[in-house]
Amino acid sequence: MAAKNTVEVLIGGKIIHLSGYESEEYLQQVASYLNHKLGELTELKGFSRLPSETRSLLLSLNVCDDFFKARKQAEVCEEDMEAKDREIYDLKQQIVDLQMQIEAMTKQSGRSQK
Amino acid sequence: MAAKNTVEVLIGGKIIHLSGYESEEYLQQVASYLNHKLGELTELKGFSRLPSETRSLLLSLNVCDDFFKARKQAEVCEEDMEAKDREIYDLKQQIVDLQMQIEAMTKQSGRSQK
Repeated sequence: MAAKNTVEVLIGGKIIHLSGYESEEYLQQVASYLNHKLGELTELKGFSRLPSETRSLLLSLNVCDDFFKARKQAEVCEEDMEAKDREIYDLKQQIVDLQMQIEAMTKQSGRSQK
Repeated sequence: MAAKNTVEVLIGGKIIHLSGYESEEYLQQVASYLNHKLGELTELKGFSRLPSETRSLLLSLNVCDDFFKARKQAEVCEEDMEAKDREIYDLKQQIVDLQMQIEAMTKQSGRSQK
């Protein structure tokens, strides 16, 4: 089992202590992404004047939107993958049929030449 | 262009006014997901005693973790998809080769019977 890490990350100027099995590198990537999103939100008119709790919730909503979109993309990809698996199965079946046809023709031609 | 919606959502007991081009249904789904995540966090020991800003940031971190995992899943799927596309291309090429072989054998057999 992986060792439990305790990591300090800085999000929106606030230090957060995180404890978990994820690597420090991963948790810093997550924090860096959140800071990037916060930076985008801060550019929106009026955002900086909102209460800090509302700002944090708007951050969560924005990240959740990213999550829903990534999840949708993964779902669509999984469906396409199933369609491709069916296509591969059909193509392999066609190859077997053609190989059998060639085998039959080869036998037939062997008999004709006797 | 889609009409801009203004929607009120309730997250962690707080009303948030959202304005955007996403449908109200989608925004309520996002809010519902965040409330579900908040519910999970609230069950963790000591979470409720944290300052509200820290709680909101921990929510963002958790959702961001979900986002990173979904994005990774989508990336892996896209790579698998490219491998499957190459496999499909190769299988189609094999089919063409076998069909050409059959055509050549059919012609050959036609000539032998004359």
